[in-house]
Order: sequence, then C-alpha cells, then structure tokens
Amino acid sequence: MKLNIAVLPGDGIGPEVTAQAVKVLKAIAMEFNHVFTFRKALVGSSAMDKTGNPLPEETVNICKEADAVLFGAIGSPAYDHDPDAKVRPEQGLLGIRKALGLHTNIRPVIAYEDLLNKSSLKVKQIKDTNLVIYRELTGGIYFGERHLSDDGNTASDVCTYQRFEIERIAHGAFKAAQSRKRKLTLVDKANVLESSRLWRRIVKEIALQYSNVEVSYMYIDNAAMELIINPRQFDVILTENMFGDILSEEASVIVGSIGLLASASLGDKHAMFEPIHGAYTKAANKGIANPIASILSAAMLLDHFGLDDEAALVREGVDKSLKLHITTPDLNNKYDNISTTKVGDFIEDF
Amino acid sequence: MKLNIAVLPGDGIGPEVTAQAVKVLKAIAMEFNHVFTFRKALVGSSAMDKTGNPLPEETVNICKEADAVLFGAIGSPAYDHDPDAKVRPEQGLLGIRKALGLHTNIRPVIAYEDLLNKSSLKVKQIKDTNLVIYRELTGGIYFGERHLSDDGNTASDVCTYQRFEIERIAHGAFKAAQSRKRKLTLVDKANVLESSRLWRRIVKEIALQYSNVEVSYMYIDNAAMELIINPRQFDVILTENMFGDILSEEASVIVGSIGLLASASLGDKHAMFEPIHGAYTKAANKGIANPIASILSAAMLLDHFGLDDEAALVREGVDKSLKLHITTPDLNNKYDNISTTKVGDFIEDF
Ligand SMILES: CC(C)[C@H](C(=O)O)[C@@H](O)C(=O)O
Ligand SMILES: CC(C)[C@H](C(=O)O)[C@@H](O)C(=O)O
Repeated sequence: MKLNIAVLPGDGIGPEVTAQAVKVLKAIAMEFNHVFTFRKALVGSSAMDKTGNPLPEETVNICKEADAVLFGAIGSPAYDHDPDAKVRPEQGLLGIRKALGLHTNIRPVIAYEDLLNKSSLKVKQIKDTNLVIYRELTGGIYFGERHLSDDGNTASDVCTYQRFEIERIAHGAFKAAQSRKRKLTLVDKANVLESSRLWRRIVKEIALQYSNVEVSYMYIDNAAMELIINPRQFDVILTENMFGDILSEEASVIVGSIGLLASASLGDKHAMFEPIHGAYTKAANKGIANPIASILSAAMLLDHFGLDDEAALVREGVDKSLKLHITTPDLNNKYDNISTTKVGDFIEDF
Repeated sequence: MKLNIAVLPGDGIGPEVTAQAVKVLKAIAMEFNHVFTFRKALVGSSAMDKTGNPLPEETVNICKEADAVLFGAIGSPAYDHDPDAKVRPEQGLLGIRKALGLHTNIRPVIAYEDLLNKSSLKVKQIKDTNLVIYRELTGGIYFGERHLSDDGNTASDVCTYQRFEIERIAHGAFKAAQSRKRKLTLVDKANVLESSRLWRRIVKEIALQYSNVEVSYMYIDNAAMELIINPRQFDVILTENMFGDILSEEASVIVGSIGLLASASLGDKHAMFEPIHGAYTKAANKGIANPIASILSAAMLLDHFGLDDEAALVREGVDKSLKLHITTPDLNNKYDNISTTKVGDFIEDF
C-alpha cells in the first residue's frame, strides 16, 4: 500500500515522540512491502516562531493532500500562562481539527496487565478495563462564539450542537459498540444543559437502530467518579467535546501514565492520529518522554487503512517493551536511563 | 444562640439523611443551650408531586426568612432520563441557589485516616489529602441563556462570567488559603475559553493582594488527572460552576464514598448547607443511605455561625463512628445492618 503521511511534530516533546512513531512506521513499511512517504509540516508554537502563525496555510495544504496526519503535541508555557496572548499554539491543533473536519475522536483506555501496579488505583479496581471514549471534536463550546466585552469585564463562550454533528459520531460509536462489548454510555449534563438534552434525545432515537447495544446515560459529574470507582462498567463512552477532553485525560490514571494514550481523529475525508498528552515542554529534549502514545497512534493509523497485521505487530512490540520494562521513567523506577529513542528502537526492531 | 433553620429534605434519600442532621443539631442545641428552630419546606420532585412546582414560592420565602438552610437532595429517575421533561427537580436546587444568591460553594475533601483503605486509590496516594474546592455556584453555563431551535435540531447554552462574580469568590478562596496551606490553584480551560481567560486575568490581579499565597493555574482536563495522581498537591482549588461540579464529585473517590462529602453554599445574605451527593432514589427508604455528608454539612452550618466547639463536637462524633466502623454499607463490608438512623443515633449521643 502507498500512503502519504503528513507529520506535524509540533512543540515540546512532540518532535521526539513523533520521530519514534515514524521510525516504527518505516520499519513496518519495509517489513510488509508498503511505500509510506512522510512530509513534515509546522504547527503550534514552533510554527509561530517561524511564521507567526500556529497553523500556516502550507501545513493545512500538506495535511489535506496526505492520506493521514501524524500529530505530535502543541503548547508552550510562554502562552499557557498568558490570558492575553493574541495567538496561541492551541489554535494550531484546534484549527487543523476544524480544517480537516475531524469530528470523531477515538481514545481507547486499556489497563495493560503488565502495568496494573503503576496506576494510582488499586489493581483490583482497574484489572481488565478496556473502554473507548468517542469524543466529539469539532463542535460544542470549543468552536462556539466567544465574546469579551469592551470594558473587559464580561466574557462568554457558547456551546452549540446541531443534529448532524451528534448523529455522525453517535453512529460511529454505536458501530464500535457492536464490535465490542455492546454497551454504550452517553455522558452529558442533560439535567442542566439544553445541548445535552439534544444529545440525549438524538442518541435515544439512534439507539433504536442498534437494538443489540445496551445504552445507558450518565451525568458528567457522576461519570468522573464512576470512571475511577468502577471503570470496568464502561465499554464505549460517547460524549461531547469538553466532557470528552476531561474524561479522557482523567482516564489516563487507569492506564498508569498519560504517556500511553493514543487517539484517532476521524472526519469524512481525513484522519489524524495523535497522543492525547500535551507538549510537556519541561521534559523536552531530555530523552525521558514516553513515545508509546505516539507509536500506538501510528498503530491506529495502520488500523484505519485495514493494515491489521501491521498494527498487531506494532502493538506486540509495545506489549513486549512493557513486559520487559523497556520503558521511560514515567513507568520505570527500577531501571533508569531507558530513553525515548531506546524504547523506539526496541519497538522498531521487534 | 437563636437560629432559624429552614429544612428542605427534598427527594430520594434526602429526607432520611437530613433527619439525622437535624437530630444531631437538636442534640447540640440542648448540650450548648442554643435555641434552634426548624421549619420544613418542599423542594424538588416531592414539591412537584404536591404543587407542580419544584421550588414553590413558600419555600423560597421560608429560606429567605431563615438564618440558614439545610438541604437534602433532589432528583428523580422519572425526569432524569427524559430530555423532554418541561419541569425538573433540579430546578428546585438551581432555583434556590439563584434566589438566595449562593455564589460560593465550598466543598472540603479530606482523606480520613480510618477510611484510607476504602478508597479506589492506593493508600499512599491519598494519605493526608486535605483540600477544599471553591466552586462558583450562580454563574457560568448553569445560568446562561439556553436555546433550542424551532425545528429541534440545534441547541445551545451560553457560559458567561462577569468580573464581580469572579472577584467575590476569588477573595473568599484566597482568604481560605491564607488560613490553610497558603496554596491556591485556579482550574480553568484558558487555552480555549474566553470566560476562562477572564477568570485567569482577574485571579492574577487579585493574587497581588494575597502575596503570601502561592498561586498556580491548571487546565481542567489536567486537573481531572492530577486530582487522582497527586491530590496532596492541592490546598484550595478555585473554579467555575461546571468544572467545580465535575471535580468535586470526582474528588469523592479520595474520601472513599460520596456519602461523606459535605458542602456550604454562601451568599452575601444567605447560607445553605448540603451533601454533595444526589437523591439516589434506588437507595431511598432502605436505611442504607450514609447520613455523614448531611451531618458534616450541619457541622459546616455551625462553623458558619462561629459555633466552633459545637462543630468540633459533631466532627468528633463522625470521626468516632468511622473509627468504630459504625457506618452504612457504602463503607462497611464486615458489619452489616448499621442503618442510616443508627449512625445518626451514635453521632447524636456522642
Ligand atoms: C491542547 C488542547 C486544546 C486539547 C483539547 O482541549 O482538545 C487537548 O487537551 C486535547 O485533549 O487534545
Ligand atoms: C443536581 C445538579 C443540578 C447539581 C449540580 O450540577 O450543581 C449537583 O450535581 C451538585 O453538584 O450539586
């Protein structure tokens, strides 16, 4: 198979971890006789430094021409703590999601047998957890109107959802549930929000078409608790943009490190793959960043193109590295000095 | 001291747990020679059943005339799963918060030494956690405009904040930090939301007046993770309405049961005290509801009026009941049949 992959390393640890994923994809291409070509593009604060723009037009074009995008991370402390910044690295990420129409963000959360003891949670609590979060990615309060009054004393953000936005991701989530444990939980705040009530109404309608899927409804506050006290109850969690952002980062505590969580962001025409972690500028260039989230994102890319054996091989490599404790310091107290690159090398050579 | 206390038991387990708190307050009045009078009023779905209104005018009046309000819980499955309900029990709670101007919701989260092993988290993870969440309670997306289009296909909710709303709770939170561990964390989503940027800007300004308080800023997604992996880092968490709702329910996992978390909701003229848990209709009238959240809310009521010795005595009773495992089934696997009332009796007699 021929695949053109746009690579947007971004900021902080983004470039280091993405380099490992690219390395692994190259090894897979070699092994399975594929032709993967990689085209790098700027995004985030590194793009701002060079062009003044967190999402240069050229980057958007490169992504649109590609079959898939591999994204690193964005963010920079220089802007993070400045509420008055006019341009922000995040606009690179939010902008590319919007430009490519990536409405469905898929974030699997799996408790690895070999990492159970790394979690903040008790082992019996998390054992056998295997859930996936379907987070709506191009709507809601992330992309609604914003307003700051002229006197600077009043600010607002609008959360809007339209039927078609809910329908398309809901169908995706129900289909996923059908091929998994056939359970779907809609997380919302329908006791307060009109937009959540629209979600609930539409999901109830759609549920009729998937009668073999057991549907439940949960308020976001309750879900934030249930995710910790009983994560095994979940199979597919379907939710809107902001709630998905919160729940998926929270869910990383189950897995033991946020450095392990991968994601796919799918649109009708485009697809992007990225770790859910951020740029962690403090950890950049020290060789301590965990490349596994990025490598597993590459595996999701392979899945996306039906390259099942290839994806399986990558995941086997990851499993093996975890079993052998060939892991970066976020997971490893006993053995030091296993660098980002060494973890990448191990999985590449596997 | 003379205190007129309005009692709004509400729905589900609300009446049972509130009855225990009232019992304890009566015992305290006796012991310390106070005159506490209690006036009951309807709220939530029980008010809807009798009057059609989740917040009858009479209830609002009783609350306004009282020195303090003791609130139980509201909610009913009859409305919970119906996105089309015209009236909802929640309007009783949200309505009374608004009517009394209860802008500052204070939710302490304390890892009790005797309950460390009840948590889903590892003991070393939670030991010595003692934080308090300052949640803004009468603004944000909870009280913004809502809209549903005529064709029912588009819905929206507006999150608005004004300077004065942020300032008043921020001062309260900074003062609390000064009398605690002198740390304050603002939780927001300032990389995306205009309203969060307003929060950040104002909190930065106000911080200058409290130079002995160490301030930090955290995004809500990150906070949802950090609350689990390192809860001890927090002292005072200051946040807006929706994020506070989510974080405080999530934080219950640290304490071991949501049946233990109390709260105070303060306005300029009024004060209300309520457990953070909901109505749990399924558990109602079985004698299994944990009354401690309600009893500790009564202790916060006593605090509010400067009745420190009285509050301390209630808390001692609670501590003792936990130490002796005189607890409801949410905390107790070994000894069965310790009912809501028995826990209340023990703390009353203490
Ligand atoms: C960086 C930020 C804008 C982004 C988001 O909130 O979506 C991130 O937290 C994520 O989850 O991908
Ligand atoms: C019942 C509901 C409206 C309420 C809220 O969201 O504020 C509850 O969850 C709470 O935290 O007090």
